[in-house]
Amino acid sequence: MPILLTGFAPFDGEHINPSWEAVRGFDGREIAGHRIDVQRLPVEFHTAREHLREALLARRYAAVLCIGQAGGRSSISLERVAINLADARMADNANYQPQMQPLIAGAPNAYFAPCRLESALAALHAASIPAEISLSAGSFVCNDVFFGLCHFHATEQASLRGTFVHIPYAPQQVLQRPLPSMPIEMVQRAIEVLIEGLAAE
Amino acid sequence: MPILLTGFAPFDGEHINPSWEAVRGFDGREIAGHRIDVQRLPVEFHTAREHLREALLARRYAAVLCIGQAGGRSSISLERVAINLADARMADNANYQPQMQPLIAGAPNAYFAPCRLESALAALHAASIPAEISLSAGSFVCNDVFFGLCHFHATEQASLRGTFVHIPYAPQQVLQRPLPSMPIEMVQRAIEVLIEGLAAE
Amino acid sequence: MPILLTGFAPFDGEHINPSWEAVRGFDGREIAGHRIDVQRLPVEFHTAREHLREALLARRYAAVLCIGQAGGRSSISLERVAINLADARMADNANYQPQMQPLIAGAPNAYFAPCRLESALAALHAASIPAEISLSAGSFVCNDVFFGLCHFHATEQASLRGTFVHIPYAPQQVLQRPLPSMPIEMVQRAIEVLIEGLAAE
Amino acid sequence: MPILLTGFAPFDGEHINPSWEAVRGFDGREIAGHRIDVQRLPVEFHTAREHLREALLARRYAAVLCIGQAGGRSSISLERVAINLADARMADNANYQPQMQPLIAGAPNAYFAPCRLESALAALHAASIPAEISLSAGSFVCNDVFFGLCHFHATEQASLRGTFVHIPYAPQQVLQRPLPSMPIEMVQRAIEVLIEGLAAE
Repeated sequence: MPILLTGFAPFDGEHINPSWEAVRGFDGREIAGHRIDVQRLPVEFHTAREHLREALLARRYAAVLCIGQAGGRSSISLERVAINLADARMADNANYQPQMQPLIAGAPNAYFAPCRLESALAALHAASIPAEISLSAGSFVCNDVFFGLCHFHATEQASLRGTFVHIPYAPQQVLQRPLPSMPIEMVQRAIEVLIEGLAAE
Repeated sequence: MPILLTGFAPFDGEHINPSWEAVRGFDGREIAGHRIDVQRLPVEFHTAREHLREALLARRYAAVLCIGQAGGRSSISLERVAINLADARMADNANYQPQMQPLIAGAPNAYFAPCRLESALAALHAASIPAEISLSAGSFVCNDVFFGLCHFHATEQASLRGTFVHIPYAPQQVLQRPLPSMPIEMVQRAIEVLIEGLAAE
Repeated sequence: MPILLTGFAPFDGEHINPSWEAVRGFDGREIAGHRIDVQRLPVEFHTAREHLREALLARRYAAVLCIGQAGGRSSISLERVAINLADARMADNANYQPQMQPLIAGAPNAYFAPCRLESALAALHAASIPAEISLSAGSFVCNDVFFGLCHFHATEQASLRGTFVHIPYAPQQVLQRPLPSMPIEMVQRAIEVLIEGLAAE
Repeated sequence: MPILLTGFAPFDGEHINPSWEAVRGFDGREIAGHRIDVQRLPVEFHTAREHLREALLARRYAAVLCIGQAGGRSSISLERVAINLADARMADNANYQPQMQPLIAGAPNAYFAPCRLESALAALHAASIPAEISLSAGSFVCNDVFFGLCHFHATEQASLRGTFVHIPYAPQQVLQRPLPSMPIEMVQRAIEVLIEGLAAE
């Protein structure tokens, strides 16, 4: 079975999204015996989650790894908690800015990531990649996709492994501001390590 | 004429110093027609500066580029100002901790870096490397070496170009703490860019 | 009906806990027609939550406001999400360090705070007090108490209003380290504003 | 002899300058037997320094304490080093943006603050006020004024004591952004402590 890897379109006035820059080259590659399918998600509430669900329904995946930008963070963030909340401080790319809305009516308040984050963290550290476990993926589109992933796991395909990972800005995004960044090459090594871990679960 | 490139030994309880990890492989390479000589400096007040001076007296260099670790910074820092002050919050590697001492009696209070930092900054940004100009190299051994470099330029060899550059922690130094880092490979690309700039002055 | 206000004992090697310094003087005061009862909770998993529950069972409160230290944050954090997880990076004051344990078996994965955080945020800003809404109270004892508060609301007393608020270090805790802080007097003004808001709901 | 205390006008799009909010109320007060004269300086290169010099020439002061805003810092910064450089990343309030200009031709590259910063730091810490010694006052108008103060001390009135102190944003300036702040009341306590120290030198 293949593994699905997703990134996002640029948003918040940025010219690139490092998640897409990092994942685009993986399409068609084989890692740990699994073919990698890559998909770019729009930064739009609901629509992004629907695109993910359609991809997960179109063929059966062994695992899914969703990547998103978390500008200002300095390390790879393995997200533990997806919350049933859309609450945006800025509009998404479709100019929609929900306030305190549930993502999926009737779904639980939160899900925990359906994979082993501790071993993933250890594997990243063993590869000398700064990484941490995060307890909040925010309440914007990244969390929406993450919640959708967990809900699909909980209600439609319990065997699916997967998680959501936030990455720092790429270096070219912080040239004029004193913020942490991580080269795309290092993010790509992190993705390989994470896919190998998902494949081994 | 060759170009001198220096890094430091580890200090402050660290197992590596990213400045040494970045520069060690440059020894004997040729960049922009200049042979690169590499030297490792001890993290010891006075002694580090003397080692640098001996190297600069042993043969005539076109330029000198000194690299040091500035843990916690997120980008390449091109240092503008060296101050005539030794004032240490911790002991150096020889267990010496000076408080409010001048580095060189009779020397000016400060020197400005003897090279064009604006063009160096632009070249780093053109290479998508996060970089900034810094107005303080501290008052520890890095500043001591930088002040010595500037003093040598001012009193012994006015044609010498050079500067001091602070670099972030390496990724393997921040695995357990939420601090910015920069891969050694990116630091090495920065050093190539900076050496090409010094060679062109 | 009175309002319950809690703070914590010192932990993590600190000599004080700013939450306790801020709340201790409120005991017996009357704000917006409500008497304030103050209680100090131990920094111990399970025990802290049990103490809170006993207090809430001993008499009927109109609202409860729990305060805890979040060292490193720069503003008042109104916590939105309590998660059903105990996962500690250090031992609590009873030398217990749970890893990936549910707090209450059979309870939901998460609760949202049972009060209006938006109006509380606006009231704090109107009083010129730096404040933000936070989506993670961590997975240490603070979150344990917050989860207990929400669970009590959900299962035993639906009329109870309340929330958990993280506060920065006090100034005297950061004299030797470059971290944000907030004077106890400003935290106390924030608590008054928050209690007035809870009383008005 | 009186003591001169200065603050600045707002700049950088801010509605207030916390330095002026902190100092304005001191005018005419007596501290440690010295009358306090307060002056507001414009955020304009050269002009601010000239205003300071005119005040110092108009009457003989025992000491001068200049306060300026350093947005983003978390503690009181006692500035150690004034550099002979005007290099601005944004225009001043007179729309002047110098690049790499000396402030005073023929003056030294730098001055060290003409007062005892260590005892000032200890006194602030004894008062539980977060404070640190800083080695860079930047290269904008604050540094210009600080350099002018030091140059006046060096060339016109060697008995004058004084220094430049950077302060954090006021709380009302950071309500919408996650930056450190310090209440004006705490800054005012710091100013009293610093004036008492200057008076005792």
